[in-house]
Amino acid sequence: MVTIQKYLSQNRRPFVEQLKSLVRFPSVSTQPEHRHDVLSCADWLARHFRTLGLDVKLYPTKGNPILVARTPPMRGPKVPSVLIYGHYDVQPPEPLELWKTSPFEPVERAGKLFGRGASDNKGQFFAHVKAVEAYLKTHTPLPVNVTFLIEGEEEVGSLNLMSFVKQRAKQLRADYIIVSDTSMFSKDHPTITYATRGIAALEVRVDGPSRDLHSGVFGGSVANPVMTLARLLAACVDANGHVVVPGFYDDVRPLEKWECEQFRGLPFNERAYARFLGVPSLVGEKGYTTLERRWARPTFEINGISGGYQGPGTKTIVPAWAGAKITCRLVPNQKPEAIAQLVTRHLRRVCPSSVRLTTTPGHHSHPFHESPRGRGAKAAAVALRKAFGSEPVFAREGGSLPILDVFKRHLRGEIILVGLGLPDDNWHSPNEKMDLANFHRGIAMSAELLRELGTAH
Amino acid sequence: MVTIQKYLSQNRRPFVEQLKSLVRFPSVSTQPEHRHDVLSCADWLARHFRTLGLDVKLYPTKGNPILVARTPPMRGPKVPSVLIYGHYDVQPPEPLELWKTSPFEPVERAGKLFGRGASDNKGQFFAHVKAVEAYLKTHTPLPVNVTFLIEGEEEVGSLNLMSFVKQRAKQLRADYIIVSDTSMFSKDHPTITYATRGIAALEVRVDGPSRDLHSGVFGGSVANPVMTLARLLAACVDANGHVVVPGFYDDVRPLEKWECEQFRGLPFNERAYARFLGVPSLVGEKGYTTLERRWARPTFEINGISGGYQGPGTKTIVPAWAGAKITCRLVPNQKPEAIAQLVTRHLRRVCPSSVRLTTTPGHHSHPFHESPRGRGAKAAAVALRKAFGSEPVFAREGGSLPILDVFKRHLRGEIILVGLGLPDDNWHSPNEKMDLANFHRGIAMSAELLRELGTAH
Repeated sequence: MVTIQKYLSQNRRPFVEQLKSLVRFPSVSTQPEHRHDVLSCADWLARHFRTLGLDVKLYPTKGNPILVARTPPMRGPKVPSVLIYGHYDVQPPEPLELWKTSPFEPVERAGKLFGRGASDNKGQFFAHVKAVEAYLKTHTPLPVNVTFLIEGEEEVGSLNLMSFVKQRAKQLRADYIIVSDTSMFSKDHPTITYATRGIAALEVRVDGPSRDLHSGVFGGSVANPVMTLARLLAACVDANGHVVVPGFYDDVRPLEKWECEQFRGLPFNERAYARFLGVPSLVGEKGYTTLERRWARPTFEINGISGGYQGPGTKTIVPAWAGAKITCRLVPNQKPEAIAQLVTRHLRRVCPSSVRLTTTPGHHSHPFHESPRGRGAKAAAVALRKAFGSEPVFAREGGSLPILDVFKRHLRGEIILVGLGLPDDNWHSPNEKMDLANFHRGIAMSAELLRELGTAH
Repeated sequence: MVTIQKYLSQNRRPFVEQLKSLVRFPSVSTQPEHRHDVLSCADWLARHFRTLGLDVKLYPTKGNPILVARTPPMRGPKVPSVLIYGHYDVQPPEPLELWKTSPFEPVERAGKLFGRGASDNKGQFFAHVKAVEAYLKTHTPLPVNVTFLIEGEEEVGSLNLMSFVKQRAKQLRADYIIVSDTSMFSKDHPTITYATRGIAALEVRVDGPSRDLHSGVFGGSVANPVMTLARLLAACVDANGHVVVPGFYDDVRPLEKWECEQFRGLPFNERAYARFLGVPSLVGEKGYTTLERRWARPTFEINGISGGYQGPGTKTIVPAWAGAKITCRLVPNQKPEAIAQLVTRHLRRVCPSSVRLTTTPGHHSHPFHESPRGRGAKAAAVALRKAFGSEPVFAREGGSLPILDVFKRHLRGEIILVGLGLPDDNWHSPNEKMDLANFHRGIAMSAELLRELGTAH
């Protein structure tokens, strides 16, 4: 590894300059006007992989191209295969006025690289690219066969990648799947994430009178759809933050003792967290800590509500209808379709006959769970410890990575989530940044991880 | 009256055309962008009154101008004074997509004039203008001195008119105050309304995090402001439709026996009513009939609710805030300020400390009650019987006419509510219309009523 370490330390500057080139592409997948930038970004990546000596294919999809890049095959019965996932698309930069520097003109400041996508996800997957480069350029035999799978639609749901993976499962199958698209618990806590939450979305609409009615002339004699909706929503969660939809928790895999202990051992400051979010106090499901609530308990969250008059002043009506958008975050082993059905059934049961109730299921994604005791997790722990100089922690993630469940079902390998993001990287927010120390440590970690995985067999 | 009747029958067409001109002004008082239209409408009216020979003054206010137009004074000890009230402002036309014809381009169809404000209130007060015109243009001595008092802020609470009336009470004092801003029970039931409901408005806002939060990363650890608001609202009314705000019903004057009997005697078809409103079934406060609920029981109504993401698709956030607009309809002898305070206090009591609650009282109006046995009521009964050819009924009104309480306190005269609206006129709703037969009968009724009032002394 000495040669590799030397290569990495000699190339810190070019690595950062290349990352800047990558961040310069406004590859915003949700905004059609950036379609050309998305394609240019994919082309740049394909060329870059080719200069490193990888075999590259860009697969067109109904949306943005999927890039598959393979290292020259190392033959031998004991060479494991590794799939490294990433995404080259980014969130929209808006609101632009809140950025201190231009989102697509990356700027280094105090050891950080500012720019949309710097951390989510360009800087993270690029660290793995640089690690593989170090092996290839120094002619150090790669201990594993590496396939990069880099998509351009993560920020819009990865639907085309899902079909792609299902169709080409055999070809993509790997012993290990490395994903760096999460965050470390803190700069001092390199993190192995072993579970993420799933999601079940549902729209609810309550229709009353065929039109808005005069609240004086008619009020009192018909159900108010907003009030009915409020009562329906209130009937889903009790005062203790417990979801009272029958069967909601049936499939929840309870936290193991070691998990609770691990979470409690983390230096989490509730006050600082509440201040950061701007809430008067923290609150959630009774009987659980804040980290448990965020990482390991399902939620019933209202994302939006709408009904009646919402402009300035008053409009004295009984509104014709009211609607709400709901998403439940799910934990292993809840099933999104089943949860959406349970919620729908509960709403139907509690809804009075004086209104019409419509429920429309939205997008779904399965929660994800990987054993934190697998060979891959152990290798990741070794690599993180070496590269970051402190003991890795095992954590869960409250957000959803829908592709993980597809990987797990169709590619079978052990999934290793080693995030290089930091909690203050401003993902999806103005002034996103990548900590460059984390970027370089991430490259070193990746080189170590590949080595560890090669010797694990 | 023969001359007058002839004048009326000869001028049916111009009367309707003039009403159309009046309806064409988008005089929406609650939307600042219509300020100019409101002023133009007032100017048009002032000019119109002048052409009829009335002495007109437009009084500027902090809001929209108040128009006072007086007939040339008839001197004599026995000439009673009559004040005729109306309003030239209208409700917002939204939602525009539900209008079959443009709200401010009045269209005649099947004997009805469609347009915002056609019935509420332009067509109604204009009927009285046309009756006075008939006296003046035919040189028939007016049996009473008439003062028109037409305001431009009824739909936003009449606050400036209230001050105006208080300040100029002496000048405006009249023996009778005629108001046509209510509805007839049905086309076959000309109606004298002797009580209206009051109103207490309140905006409620629940603030949680300082910004919309990622519902995966943070969801479960902070209160969802939409859910908290839903719970607050649901905690104000029970499953029996009973408002559970402590003290809410304390001042309610119970219905007298004759009133319940009068209401029960009215041909009210619950099924047809539900079908007309488009609701699956009628529902309201337990223990009361539909007419009692509409006319003589207070309500807690949500007029609008808003919070979080309301566009297409999903946005997985914990919204930063949510808000609702509430109005309570009040019955004699509830006091609006007291009710707003009771509701506020109740909300504060049930609101958890995990969010910030803001309540903003809105406009208030007192319920109104007039004896149905006065001279004015008797004169109105005669006039209605003659013009409509059937026996008038005495009814209450669910809507609010805030100015009535001020008239009663400061102008002292007997208040006569003779509505020319019909229950299906779609006040405050899309496709508002004025029945033109009612408009013409209303003009005839007004001419008769002025005569009756002149001879009543």
